[in-house]
Amino acid sequence: MRSFQELMARAVGTREKVLAVVAAHDDDVLLSIKEAYAQGLARAILLGDREKIVRLAAEINMDLSSHWIIHQPDPEEASRLAVSLVREGEADILMKGLLPSPVILKEVLHRERGLRTENILSHIAVFEVPGYDRLFFMSDSGLNIAPSLEVKIGMVKNAVALAHRLGIEQPRVAIIAGIELVNPDMPSSVDAALIAKMAERGQIKGCLVDGPLSLDLAVSEEAARAKGVGGAVAGRADILIMPGIDAANVLYKAIGFLVRSVITGIILGAKAPIILTSRADTAKAKLYSIALSSLIVEDGQSEREKPRLVQFGR
Amino acid sequence: MRSFQELMARAVGTREKVLAVVAAHDDDVLLSIKEAYAQGLARAILLGDREKIVRLAAEINMDLSSHWIIHQPDPEEASRLAVSLVREGEADILMKGLLPSPVILKEVLHRERGLRTENILSHIAVFEVPGYDRLFFMSDSGLNIAPSLEVKIGMVKNAVALAHRLGIEQPRVAIIAGIELVNPDMPSSVDAALIAKMAERGQIKGCLVDGPLSLDLAVSEEAARAKGVGGAVAGRADILIMPGIDAANVLYKAIGFLVRSVITGIILGAKAPIILTSRADTAKAKLYSIALSSLIVEDGQSEREKPRLVQFGR
Repeated sequence: MRSFQELMARAVGTREKVLAVVAAHDDDVLLSIKEAYAQGLARAILLGDREKIVRLAAEINMDLSSHWIIHQPDPEEASRLAVSLVREGEADILMKGLLPSPVILKEVLHRERGLRTENILSHIAVFEVPGYDRLFFMSDSGLNIAPSLEVKIGMVKNAVALAHRLGIEQPRVAIIAGIELVNPDMPSSVDAALIAKMAERGQIKGCLVDGPLSLDLAVSEEAARAKGVGGAVAGRADILIMPGIDAANVLYKAIGFLVRSVITGIILGAKAPIILTSRADTAKAKLYSIALSSLIVEDGQSEREKPRLVQFGR
Repeated sequence: MRSFQELMARAVGTREKVLAVVAAHDDDVLLSIKEAYAQGLARAILLGDREKIVRLAAEINMDLSSHWIIHQPDPEEASRLAVSLVREGEADILMKGLLPSPVILKEVLHRERGLRTENILSHIAVFEVPGYDRLFFMSDSGLNIAPSLEVKIGMVKNAVALAHRLGIEQPRVAIIAGIELVNPDMPSSVDAALIAKMAERGQIKGCLVDGPLSLDLAVSEEAARAKGVGGAVAGRADILIMPGIDAANVLYKAIGFLVRSVITGIILGAKAPIILTSRADTAKAKLYSIALSSLIVEDGQSEREKPRLVQFGR
């Protein structure tokens, strides 16, 4: 996958999806949905403060007649209802609007009525960098604070499954550490070596894995060559598995604020993709995350019926 | 300090320094010394393989008559001699050429004949990013793997002393974590909160400190405003103290390979500045680290005598 442009082009070809949007009274959220609808990607069930939604939509000349509104200003109630809509198949994708992440995640993770599967949940960020020929996928800057080896393996599996959905048959996975050597004093390098060896032994499938690799050795063929680091991944990684949330967040923010490139992300591993962008993300980043989610929705039907829930809506 | 250009302009005004360069037989190292000499910054005692040094110098049209060569191809012996030159005041700055860092560091850290002081040793990286109005100082991507709270405080003190030398009277120090909230499950955020409070109580002086801050909130006033994070540091940090080497290395490599901006660095806290750039760094990065070192050499004399060691040299 070379760029966000290619991602968009692919997503536009799929059937229109339905978003369940919690606390939808946010201008950038509505703007991204307006654009997603215009491109045939999705329409939305907007849960939140109806009056605010209508006012904000008017400000951006958004026609609400193609969407549904459910007036539920309470964030917890709105989260619960949106999650149930996704669980029952009324919506394909869960999207967070103007509310704190923990509120919506609590419903997602609820043991009975949540969206858990046997997989771990992990966040994946997607970004492009001028001068590089591919999109990068990075995990986990949003959810797993200090991932154990087991959680990191789950992060790899979720990322690889996503790459397969996007048509990347053998994604190259770099397990990142501060150094490319195995150093018993650096847990990140030890975990990286173990995951790489597990993949070599066939314990992780459908991808090429190497680590420990520092960021430059993962992304830049020139750096890998200069340092004499070979293998199928060095310099050509699609997926970057970060050692912890501190390093992952630094990379996420460096892309946004120092490279000044678009970065977006979603949560993988639940029954449906979850868009958990933050207020700081632009409408464009939110649109890309809708496109990304759209491509990974498990899909039997070629054309779905409108949600039964329309009765609540208008 | 607004830019590397300003750094260079300042350094050019100081007296010429003497570098002790270990394993100087490296083209980029020699190129940076040639340029440093041309600008009146420094001349060098070149320890290494004389024949290779002479050949490489010829290739870049470097006149060796202003420098001294000591033929010592053994890296350990060369390290030992170079460190003694610095310790005895024959040279102002120690510079690493083509040898593994641990070899030279072993001599630097030697309890009797090394360059230790009462300070901890820490690495500081310096970089500029297009669109930002100042140089950034970042610690520690090179030396301290998993810094304890105590070591982090030492990193802050070293960085602040450097900033003072560069004329930044009250440097703004951001202690970086993956989040701006204090989260007991994230040691980085806990350490950051403690260091910030210590500075507030006057336990760390000569600077303004805040943390935990994520990278965007540290560097971008817009991001800080959008998130409602106030204080004297948010959005205006000069110094970034990273939670560990994984995150620090990711930022270092992101600057070099994703932002594609110059990043350089030196080691602080020893009796003299130590230039420990890697082969991957450009000659320009090495030149900037000579300029940076040049500005922080403790300086009594306005004009120094030529090294007595000239007798070994020619």
